[in-house]
Amino acid sequence: MTQPTITHTNNTSQSNQASKQHILLIGAGLCGSLLALRLGQRGYKVTVMEMRPDLRKVDISAGRSINLALSNRGIKAINLVGLWDKVKPLCIPMNGRMLHDTAGNTTFAPYSGRDHEYINSISRGMLNALLLDEAEKHENVSIYFNRKCDSVDFENTTAHFTNLDNQEQLNQTANIIIATDGAGSAMRQSYFLSRKFLFSFSQEYLTHGYKELTILPGKNGSYKTDKNVLHIWGREAFMLIALPNLDGSFTVTLFLSYNEGEYNFNNLTTKERVLAFFTAYFKDALDLMPNLVDDFFTNPTAPLGTVKCAPWHYKGNTLLMGDAAHAIVPFYGQGMNASFEDVVEFDKVLDAEHDSWEAIFTAYEKTRKKDTDAIADLAIDNFYEMKGHVNHPNFREKRTLEMALEKTFPEAYASKYSLVTFNETIGYREAMMRGRAQDKAILNMLADQTITKVNNLSDTELKETLQKVNAETEAILEDDRIAGLK
Amino acid sequence: MTQPTITHTNNTSQSNQASKQHILLIGAGLCGSLLALRLGQRGYKVTVMEMRPDLRKVDISAGRSINLALSNRGIKAINLVGLWDKVKPLCIPMNGRMLHDTAGNTTFAPYSGRDHEYINSISRGMLNALLLDEAEKHENVSIYFNRKCDSVDFENTTAHFTNLDNQEQLNQTANIIIATDGAGSAMRQSYFLSRKFLFSFSQEYLTHGYKELTILPGKNGSYKTDKNVLHIWGREAFMLIALPNLDGSFTVTLFLSYNEGEYNFNNLTTKERVLAFFTAYFKDALDLMPNLVDDFFTNPTAPLGTVKCAPWHYKGNTLLMGDAAHAIVPFYGQGMNASFEDVVEFDKVLDAEHDSWEAIFTAYEKTRKKDTDAIADLAIDNFYEMKGHVNHPNFREKRTLEMALEKTFPEAYASKYSLVTFNETIGYREAMMRGRAQDKAILNMLADQTITKVNNLSDTELKETLQKVNAETEAILEDDRIAGLK
Repeated sequence: MTQPTITHTNNTSQSNQASKQHILLIGAGLCGSLLALRLGQRGYKVTVMEMRPDLRKVDISAGRSINLALSNRGIKAINLVGLWDKVKPLCIPMNGRMLHDTAGNTTFAPYSGRDHEYINSISRGMLNALLLDEAEKHENVSIYFNRKCDSVDFENTTAHFTNLDNQEQLNQTANIIIATDGAGSAMRQSYFLSRKFLFSFSQEYLTHGYKELTILPGKNGSYKTDKNVLHIWGREAFMLIALPNLDGSFTVTLFLSYNEGEYNFNNLTTKERVLAFFTAYFKDALDLMPNLVDDFFTNPTAPLGTVKCAPWHYKGNTLLMGDAAHAIVPFYGQGMNASFEDVVEFDKVLDAEHDSWEAIFTAYEKTRKKDTDAIADLAIDNFYEMKGHVNHPNFREKRTLEMALEKTFPEAYASKYSLVTFNETIGYREAMMRGRAQDKAILNMLADQTITKVNNLSDTELKETLQKVNAETEAILEDDRIAGLK
Repeated sequence: MTQPTITHTNNTSQSNQASKQHILLIGAGLCGSLLALRLGQRGYKVTVMEMRPDLRKVDISAGRSINLALSNRGIKAINLVGLWDKVKPLCIPMNGRMLHDTAGNTTFAPYSGRDHEYINSISRGMLNALLLDEAEKHENVSIYFNRKCDSVDFENTTAHFTNLDNQEQLNQTANIIIATDGAGSAMRQSYFLSRKFLFSFSQEYLTHGYKELTILPGKNGSYKTDKNVLHIWGREAFMLIALPNLDGSFTVTLFLSYNEGEYNFNNLTTKERVLAFFTAYFKDALDLMPNLVDDFFTNPTAPLGTVKCAPWHYKGNTLLMGDAAHAIVPFYGQGMNASFEDVVEFDKVLDAEHDSWEAIFTAYEKTRKKDTDAIADLAIDNFYEMKGHVNHPNFREKRTLEMALEKTFPEAYASKYSLVTFNETIGYREAMMRGRAQDKAILNMLADQTITKVNNLSDTELKETLQKVNAETEAILEDDRIAGLK
């Protein structure tokens, strides 16, 4: 059994004693399995308890989140555990958005003006299986499936499980417990219901839900439409998207209100209405989905929610991580990337000289929470951007200008999308603050006609425009700073 | 028995049938008792179930929220039920903030440049008792005490109570149930725990808690310090305030972190430390409180939380109102005012031609929620303003200018504080949007030296300044509008 390379080798008071510390992880999804691997690499004794069956042995896909967008922040984490060579072959690059209008016309809108910046469609199941395989290569890592966490006695660092194989109850105590059990986290529920400390908590649902559909592969695994893009049918009140899979299929997701508008999930109850809806709004997509009606009535409709909470940790006993701490809506393609970045940030804190788990958890939450709050808000913004703004003339002008700026001045300009998605060296919060100010600067300069031309600018003109955008961005940030009395 | 004048006499499909409709209210605090009175005036059969004993017979003050600030939005509601003549004698006008520095120097900062604009200190107990008395004058209103709501079966419009007099369980069904049971609402908990619909919910705690203290009356019920102001000892990291009572006492509230800083609630555990803290930071207040140490260790420390949720109603069966729907922190003095305004807004919706309770609840939430969300955010802003900003030179310059503008152009200018507190004809959200833009405009023009002088301006100079402030405010609102793509 070969041990993967351990990237960080710093010795700290914690890592010195790693082998003596037993860490219990609740949940072996993407975040839990990556964390198990990393903590295993660092030498901790790691026990992982997962509610579901082993996805390497049982097909547990249920028409939900079959594929995901992996980008720089997630890749940084994959590099930390030394797995990029194995993950890269699972990736399908998507260079931009392919916007489909009602008439079936398409427009390509790149994600970046820099050719090396793109996002990757990847299968949740394949990636999770790889991470489980790699974690289990460490003899100090043990993973158990069908162990459902019922609650956590965080004062005694003990989790209570039901073994779903035989319905027996079991308790597990450890030096620390980290819950990576997703948006519906059992440990977070224990924090909330116990009322033993002041626990701030929010769950916010959008009025829209989602349903996964499929464009099946063409002959011999060929793709029925463009493969290297993220397809968007944005219709203001609702939206359809499609991401490619390695087998030639596309996972299609419909985002639609539960109860508002002429067509909504509550009233799409017959084959005829579903076909009428798709014929009216997504004709070109419908043509690729003869299987639509079956998928529509077989697959579940699921809600879209944002969860924030604080504190993430109880003293030095327990910690929430990943979706358990910060579930976000999928519209920035950052859910998995944010959870993977959690592992990178936690790993950094382990490298620092802290003398207790409480100090480690406190330091981690202090640096990390502002960034996960920011990506939660950005993801909701992007819901509105993708549904409708992408079709607005002023939004399109802004993107055209930004692509020219990024192409011509690759070192000097990055759009909000690029700051969030491709600039893993800055945090989400900084990306949000600067990105929003840039958007505001450009949109207002277009409205004021301070910028009158965005196409075919000479390099000199483009440079002048860049200077205007930067100056106005700084002015906006400064005005906000003064108004906030910071 | 004399019936109070009914202000609204519009006949609607609902109010036509009011006498046939039975409304169950959970909670007879300020909001519940006012709502009971108003619904009684409208002719509904009203049953109110209150968890606590009757405060007119038992002293249930517990060192928490003894007095409150009543201002225009609350007075509007008192006028709706025709009670202003009885409430006015309970009020002690407060014309502004009296700022106390560490050396004991004081500065008076008026709330408005208009003499008729002030807030009123009023006793929670006296006001609640009056509202209960008036509600009970209606034979169609019945109020029961010691009835604790355990949960609400909102699908069947049935509430489950424990009669605390004999520990018996009882169920109460009605045409509709309105929960006015405060920040810890049992019905809201039933919404949350049932998982029968998508319920967005947030509870956010500040890092600070609060504790009530007292300045006792002087001889013959005299006041030991200025009576017609709200006293503030703002110390950046913590704050003390005092509001007058009719008996010559002041209710004093300490806002302090639970666990941060040299002095905090968790480490103020001895008489010596409490006295050292007050001697260092609140010497002039300490001199008025020989009873400080006793109060400090007798009275509870309570958290400061904000609760938001949506939807407030389940179909046409049940509705949350007042703190049960939107608990806020006390720093804008708007908690009671917002809950009273709920009753005014609900009453308006009852006047409209809606043909079902579901339509009424939906219309009410649609108009009201944006405003209660806004006052929740404004109240948190004011925590930072009161603690520290009131001491900043640029903040003080802004207030000096605003007072001059309000005094000289009473019809043309209203500060954010005035918009929120004294302009009951606009909603909290509009007050927040305009007020924040004005603050930003003035603070930035002071920083840029676009405005260089705020004292002793001639009327001509002041008029020019008003025009600059208004123009910049409009520009800020327009820039935000464009950036939001609205």
